[in-house]
Amino acid sequence: MSRAVLSLNAGSSSIKFGLFELDGDGGAFAAAAGKIEGIGTSPHLEARDASGVLLSEQRWGGGAALPHEAFLETLLNWAEAHLGSKELVGVGHRVVHGGLQFTGPAVLSDSVVDEIEALTPLAPLHQPHNLAAIRAIRSVRPRLPQVACFDTAFHRTQPAVAMRFALPRELGRQGIRRYGFHGISYEYVSRTLLKVTPELASARVIVAHLGNGASLCAMRGGLSVDTTMGFTALDGLVMGTRCGSIDPGVLLYLLQQKGLTAEDVQRLLYEQSGLLGVSGLSSDMRVLLDSDDPRADEAIELFAYRVAREAGALAASLGGVDAFVFTAGIGEGAASVRALIAERLAWLGVKIDAAANAAGEGVVSAPDSAVLLRVMHTDEELMIALHTIELLLAAAA
Amino acid sequence: MSRAVLSLNAGSSSIKFGLFELDGDGGAFAAAAGKIEGIGTSPHLEARDASGVLLSEQRWGGGAALPHEAFLETLLNWAEAHLGSKELVGVGHRVVHGGLQFTGPAVLSDSVVDEIEALTPLAPLHQPHNLAAIRAIRSVRPRLPQVACFDTAFHRTQPAVAMRFALPRELGRQGIRRYGFHGISYEYVSRTLLKVTPELASARVIVAHLGNGASLCAMRGGLSVDTTMGFTALDGLVMGTRCGSIDPGVLLYLLQQKGLTAEDVQRLLYEQSGLLGVSGLSSDMRVLLDSDDPRADEAIELFAYRVAREAGALAASLGGVDAFVFTAGIGEGAASVRALIAERLAWLGVKIDAAANAAGEGVVSAPDSAVLLRVMHTDEELMIALHTIELLLAAAA
Repeated sequence: MSRAVLSLNAGSSSIKFGLFELDGDGGAFAAAAGKIEGIGTSPHLEARDASGVLLSEQRWGGGAALPHEAFLETLLNWAEAHLGSKELVGVGHRVVHGGLQFTGPAVLSDSVVDEIEALTPLAPLHQPHNLAAIRAIRSVRPRLPQVACFDTAFHRTQPAVAMRFALPRELGRQGIRRYGFHGISYEYVSRTLLKVTPELASARVIVAHLGNGASLCAMRGGLSVDTTMGFTALDGLVMGTRCGSIDPGVLLYLLQQKGLTAEDVQRLLYEQSGLLGVSGLSSDMRVLLDSDDPRADEAIELFAYRVAREAGALAASLGGVDAFVFTAGIGEGAASVRALIAERLAWLGVKIDAAANAAGEGVVSAPDSAVLLRVMHTDEELMIALHTIELLLAAAA
Repeated sequence: MSRAVLSLNAGSSSIKFGLFELDGDGGAFAAAAGKIEGIGTSPHLEARDASGVLLSEQRWGGGAALPHEAFLETLLNWAEAHLGSKELVGVGHRVVHGGLQFTGPAVLSDSVVDEIEALTPLAPLHQPHNLAAIRAIRSVRPRLPQVACFDTAFHRTQPAVAMRFALPRELGRQGIRRYGFHGISYEYVSRTLLKVTPELASARVIVAHLGNGASLCAMRGGLSVDTTMGFTALDGLVMGTRCGSIDPGVLLYLLQQKGLTAEDVQRLLYEQSGLLGVSGLSSDMRVLLDSDDPRADEAIELFAYRVAREAGALAASLGGVDAFVFTAGIGEGAASVRALIAERLAWLGVKIDAAANAAGEGVVSAPDSAVLLRVMHTDEELMIALHTIELLLAAAA
């Protein structure tokens, strides 16, 4: 009998999902995908097949009071019905924080759930939603195996020096470390890259995950050695509404001289900064690229400047760069932003091919570029599905 | 008649000074130097000649109550007596913050003093001490011309993008910008470098000011285009007791999850972090280099790692690196730290010459190094004296 797994990415007001069928070769292909949105207000579920055709839609009344169990039971019922004779053998979850202890995905036993719960203070805005989805599935399908895939795990191959802040040692022991994020995406890109270009097996690679959240990862031999996000997903590059790297003195000034509370500062740096703050227009790169407002240009310029500056920092950690990969929304979709970044990296021997870049797939560097440039699609849901399959097959073996 | 100027660098509990005689050629040479220490507790003054021989020493009782006028009048009286028939024609001050408006040194008129005062909220820990010294001199020698040299001014040649945070534009208008510091030191090194190696006139240069405070400056054609310190002197490299760059999420975590106040966080990040925090031993690089405690090695490793990482970032801003200059206490004094940094910059074509590095002066790169490495002495007091002479001569002309 054919088998399938469900990938879940649970946030505060939405849950994204992907339904994947096993291909019998350790791989998987998408059977359906969708999301439940408006959790807490006016929830609705939408599922589409691999070509985007709507398969199912559902709305609930009384949204504010509905528990996760209600949505997720509906989702599981729909998935099982949609699969027909195929069996749903497990659910994989994106979990934002795996601390230092989770260096890869983990089957969700009681003790693993407890460990994930204990990490909540490190990611108070995300971890509770991941846990709510895990618990809801356990409640409605107690015997369905579940797997956690951590956004931090891929970075646990970094040297200790890359994970350390220059803070008193005791704070490091208490968990204040540079964990890094976007690890599920980086792992997917790393695997795919080594599959399509096995000659890069021991190369020095920078992967730029440029979406609404954005970071860079330095990889050697396919493993993370440095990244721009640190303790939280606030650090590093300019993002849609997040500030990225900022002098810690700015926070002290806002608190001590301007009278802001920590909550005010959090809202400012997470929700009102980044492309939105600089442009005063939008957090969406597509809107900024379409605008002729000079403030939009300033936001785009700062975005590219900071990608190039951080790429220089990661080049130092790698000892040079052989390949640079663009992925995620902006990385895959914005040819002009790729061109701006490539221009600022010309000193590394980067030469972009204008026509290939406009086409926007595969290799986009010129033949004589010292650094291979690629655009690659990332697929976190598929990566979660693959891990789920691997772990459940291993557990069954 | 020969003339002289006095340089002052006033801090919270000490005032460093240098007495310089004009050489008649627009230059100056040190006649004496020293410091007043223990201000607010048990103050004493010490003055030495250029070869370090003690010229004068003085102690005061009742230190807690003594105003700056008391020390500085004593210092001026001593300086004038020491100069004999030579005339003290002006006093130059290091002033930490010149905002965006001061792009060079300024003669201290009433309105300039008011402008400096208005910048106090941007540097509340330093600006008041600079102002106290300026006002004390005005009070005891009302007709003695004074000049302010700003630690920020040298960086005002940076492009707008380098000075911008990814924050709402309104905060930039309110003064939350990347100003940069150590500018008096960088200007001195830049002038000296172009004098000794005029062939670097349009080169891409990184100057590493590595002392108890530490930063890097990227220069093109002798002018600052980027630097690692931002809004305050807390950002960038690992310092003696300061953390340097840190994820802003760490500050929010300490405030929201650990219950620290803003003042606690300030003390932690300014006074208990950096080399001291990581080693748990000392903020002094010399102590760490002499230690065989593995924690000392970790602190040194992190210091060098972060210098190399930030140098990569600045290389991106410069579009490559032709020369790298080490200066200030660690930069001039710690050959093994220079070697560690050079090793991490090998990917840029950096090759250090072990024997020249051990000797520790002038060119320390190997003949086939793609990047010229130099050790250069910095002299902020002399730079202040030179600016003071230039401005007073210009005012007199």
